[in-house]
Amino acid sequence: MTLSRQPALDALAQRLGPQGLWQRPGAEASTGAAPAFDGWPAHEQDWRGRYRGRALAIARPASVDEVVFVVQVCAQAGIPVVPQGGNTSLVGGSVPDETGLQLVLSLQRMNQVFAVDPVNLSMTVQAGCLLATVQESARAQGLLFPLSLAAEGSCTIGGNLATNAGGTQVLRYGTARELCLGLQVVTAQGEVLDQLTALRKNNTGYDLRDLFIGSEGTLGVITAATLRLHPLPRGSATCLLPCTTLAAAVAALTSAREHLDAGLTAFEVMGQLPLQLLQAHAPQVAAPLSAWAGSATLPPWVLLIEHQSATSADMAQQQLTQWLCGPAAGLSGLHTEQAVVAHAEAQAQALWAVREHIPLAEKAEGLMVKHDIGLPTSAIPAFVEAMQQVIPARWPGARIVCFGHLGDGNLHFNVQPPEGQRHAEGMAAFEPEVNALVFDAVCERAGTISAEHGIGALRAQELQRRTSPVALRLMRAIRQSIDPQGVFNPGRLLP
Amino acid sequence: MTLSRQPALDALAQRLGPQGLWQRPGAEASTGAAPAFDGWPAHEQDWRGRYRGRALAIARPASVDEVVFVVQVCAQAGIPVVPQGGNTSLVGGSVPDETGLQLVLSLQRMNQVFAVDPVNLSMTVQAGCLLATVQESARAQGLLFPLSLAAEGSCTIGGNLATNAGGTQVLRYGTARELCLGLQVVTAQGEVLDQLTALRKNNTGYDLRDLFIGSEGTLGVITAATLRLHPLPRGSATCLLPCTTLAAAVAALTSAREHLDAGLTAFEVMGQLPLQLLQAHAPQVAAPLSAWAGSATLPPWVLLIEHQSATSADMAQQQLTQWLCGPAAGLSGLHTEQAVVAHAEAQAQALWAVREHIPLAEKAEGLMVKHDIGLPTSAIPAFVEAMQQVIPARWPGARIVCFGHLGDGNLHFNVQPPEGQRHAEGMAAFEPEVNALVFDAVCERAGTISAEHGIGALRAQELQRRTSPVALRLMRAIRQSIDPQGVFNPGRLLP
Repeated sequence: MTLSRQPALDALAQRLGPQGLWQRPGAEASTGAAPAFDGWPAHEQDWRGRYRGRALAIARPASVDEVVFVVQVCAQAGIPVVPQGGNTSLVGGSVPDETGLQLVLSLQRMNQVFAVDPVNLSMTVQAGCLLATVQESARAQGLLFPLSLAAEGSCTIGGNLATNAGGTQVLRYGTARELCLGLQVVTAQGEVLDQLTALRKNNTGYDLRDLFIGSEGTLGVITAATLRLHPLPRGSATCLLPCTTLAAAVAALTSAREHLDAGLTAFEVMGQLPLQLLQAHAPQVAAPLSAWAGSATLPPWVLLIEHQSATSADMAQQQLTQWLCGPAAGLSGLHTEQAVVAHAEAQAQALWAVREHIPLAEKAEGLMVKHDIGLPTSAIPAFVEAMQQVIPARWPGARIVCFGHLGDGNLHFNVQPPEGQRHAEGMAAFEPEVNALVFDAVCERAGTISAEHGIGALRAQELQRRTSPVALRLMRAIRQSIDPQGVFNPGRLLP
Repeated sequence: MTLSRQPALDALAQRLGPQGLWQRPGAEASTGAAPAFDGWPAHEQDWRGRYRGRALAIARPASVDEVVFVVQVCAQAGIPVVPQGGNTSLVGGSVPDETGLQLVLSLQRMNQVFAVDPVNLSMTVQAGCLLATVQESARAQGLLFPLSLAAEGSCTIGGNLATNAGGTQVLRYGTARELCLGLQVVTAQGEVLDQLTALRKNNTGYDLRDLFIGSEGTLGVITAATLRLHPLPRGSATCLLPCTTLAAAVAALTSAREHLDAGLTAFEVMGQLPLQLLQAHAPQVAAPLSAWAGSATLPPWVLLIEHQSATSADMAQQQLTQWLCGPAAGLSGLHTEQAVVAHAEAQAQALWAVREHIPLAEKAEGLMVKHDIGLPTSAIPAFVEAMQQVIPARWPGARIVCFGHLGDGNLHFNVQPPEGQRHAEGMAAFEPEVNALVFDAVCERAGTISAEHGIGALRAQELQRRTSPVALRLMRAIRQSIDPQGVFNPGRLLP
C-alpha cells in the first residue's frame, strides 16, 4: 500500500505530536495547527552555507519506536528520509535537496546517556547526544571518550558515527569507527537492528556495525551506540615546534612515534600562510607565535605535538622534553631550540587555540577551494612540494593554505585566490580545475579525496569518477540489498 | 554458459600447471598425468581433526590473475570454492565438505612480502604469507606487526583477516581488523577489488574492507593486504600474579589499564584447573608455578600481565613494579607479594610458556566441550560463578577449564568430563546441552558465542539460533548481493 504524502504527514503528526513533527507553515496537517518552530531554517541549510534545501517536514522522534514509525510511513508513502544529527556536515551530507519532497529525520530529541560501565570501559548513548555531552559524561566517571573535533558542541554522536568522524586524537585513539563497540540502527524496512554490544571481540557474522559507520545515512538510521572509553590520562604536555621542511616534519613524526609511542596523542602541522592569516584575522590567539617575532618571517612549518601520560603531567612534560632535547634535536630541519613548550594547562590551551582558529582565520580571509585529503605520510612532502610548484604556476598569486593532522596523513589543503582578490573573482571559476589538479596528484600517490569529511553531496560526483568500477558495483549492490527503495538520503554518497 | 566439472578442471589444469592444480588421483585431468602431492590430506582435514572433507581438487594459484581465472571458471561451472590459508581454523571454516564437489583454493603459494614503508608504518603482503613471516619482515625493519597467536607459524595473514583473528595482543593493538589498512579481494564475479591503500583515514564510501574482514571466505577471496605497523617497543616486563577471585582479577585489570595505559599489552587469566593440567601434562614448563609450591594448592586464579615501554626494558620493569607495589597492592584479593616477575627475556618466555601450553595440556587430558566466549569484563565474575555452581550440579564431577584473554573479555571456557572418564563416555552425549547452558548464560549477559574463533561449520547452526532475525536478514541480503550464486564457502558461517 502506498500512502500519498499528506495522509502520511497526517499519520506522523498524529503519532509524534506537535513537537515530533514540524510541517512547513501553510502545509500543516489537517489534524492540527502548525506549531511555531524557530529552529526550522537550521535543518535545511548546511554549516558552511553552501547547500540550502527545502524540507517536506521535519520529524523529531523521541524514541526508537517513533523512528520506526517514521521510516515505515515514509517508506510506504515513497517519501525520502534524510537522517540528521547536529547538521554540521562539511560536504552537504545532512540537508534535504531543493525538491521539497524529502523529510528530515532529526535525532536531536533522542539525547539520553543510557549507561556508563567504568569496569568494561564502555557507555551506551542515544544518537542525538551532543559529542560534548558524551565527552562530559565519560569524564564525570573519570574516563575519556577521545573523539574531539571543532564542532563537538554542536555535532551529535550519531552523526559522528554515520560519517566516521576524525578530529585531533585519531593518531592514538582512531576515528569514530574505532571508538564504537555496538550500534542500534533502524533499517529501511523499519526494523530495529539491535547490536548494542559492549564487547571488544565478537566474531559472529558480517561486520554490520562498520558497514553502517561511515555510510552517511544512506543505509539506515543510527539511533543509539555503545562506545569504547579509555582511562583519563593524568597529564599532558604540548609544544609548538618550528621546522624547515615537511620532510623534516615527517621525520619528526617517525621519531616521536618511536620514542613516545602511544603517549603521542596529537601531531598537527600548520604551514606559514595559515599562521599569517591567523596573525591577521585572529591576533588575540596568535601570541604563541610571537616567540619567533625576531625572525623576519614565521617558520615555513610549525608542528603542534601533544604527549600524554597515565602517570602525571610532570611525567608527560619530562618525556616530551627528553624527546625534544634528545632524538628530535638530532634531526636536521627541526628547530627544537625554538620549540614553545606549554608549562601549564592554560598555556597548552593557548597553543591549541592557534591550531583551532586557523579555519576561522581562513574564513575571514575569504572563500577558497577546500580539500580534505589523505596520503601515506611518506608521500606527503613530495605531494606538497609538487603542488607548491604547479598551483602558483597555473594561477599566479594563488595561495596554498595547508594544515592538518600530519600524524594521520590527513591535510586540509586549501587554495586561496591571490591576495586582494575575492574568491568569486579569483578562483571560483577555476574550482573544478583546481580540484582535478589536486585530486589527480593525490590519487597518483595512492591517497584519498576525503580523509575525514566524507562524500555527502559535495564529492558524490568526484567519488564516482575516482572509484574503481568494481568498488562502485559492490557499494551499489550493498545499498540495493539493504535499502532497495532508496528511502535513505538519496543523492548523497552514491547518487 | 555453464561448463561441466571435468572440462572446468581441464581448463584449470592447463592454465595453472601441475603445481597450480592438484586433482584427486584417479580423477586427473585428461590433459595430463596426476602429479604427486604429499600435502593433499592437510587441505581436507581441519586442525582439530573434527572435520574431514573431500575436495574435488586443490587449486594453488601463484598470482591474482590465476585466482581470477579459478573463480571465473568455477563460477561458470557451478563449482563451489573454499578459500584456504594455513587451514588452522578451529571451527571447520576452511575445509571442503564431504561431497567431493568443492574446490579448495589455497593461497599458500601467494606468499610474497611486496613492500614495507617504515615512514608510513605500513606493509603490503600477499594473503598466503605466514603470520610469522609478516612479523619477521616488520621486525627486520625495526617495526612491529603485533598480531600474535599460537598458530602463527602455520596460519596465513589472509586467513587471519578472513576470520578477524585475535590472540594475545588485542588489548593494546586490536584484532586483525584494526591492523589492516587495505585489501585486495577477488569477487564472486572474478573481478579484482583493489583497495590496497595505506591510509589511516579514508571516508570515501562504504567500508568494504571491514565487510570482507571476518566474513570467513564467504564473500570473496582476500589475495593481498596492506597492514598497519607499530614501532617496536624497546622493552617489556612480564609477571604472574595470583589472585583469589575473578572479581579481584577484573579490579586488577581496571587498575592496570588506568596506571599502565597503552603500555599494558597483555592481561591473561588462568584458572586453577588448567594450571593443574599443566603440572600433570607439561611439567617441563610448569616451573614458574613452583613459586607457590609451599601452599597446599595452586591459587584459584593466576594473571599473566605484560607491560611494554618505548624507552627501555628497565622502564617497563620499573613501571610494572610500581603498579604492583602501589595501586595493585592496595586491592583486596590480589597476592602481589607472591607475584613472579620476570627479570630477563628468558624468564618472560618461561612465564608465557605457562599460558601457551595450557591448550596442549588440556588436549593431553582428553577431549572436552570447548567454548570461545566473550563478555563485557564487568559481567565475567558473575558468569563464571554461576557456571561453577550449575555445571557440576548438573554433571557431577565435570571440570571447568577456564583461561583466556581477560583484558578483552574473552574466555576459553571448556568443560572436561569427570576425572578418569573419557570424553566419549563422560560428556560427549551432553555436548549440545552443555553448549545450550553456557551460551544461554553468555547471551543473557550480552556476550558472544564466538569472540575470536569465528563461526565456520561448528557454530553455524548456533549463530542462526542466537542472532536476531533482522541481523540475519541483513547478512543474507549482503551475501546475496555480493555472491548471488553462492560460489564461496557454501554452508559456512551462514548456511
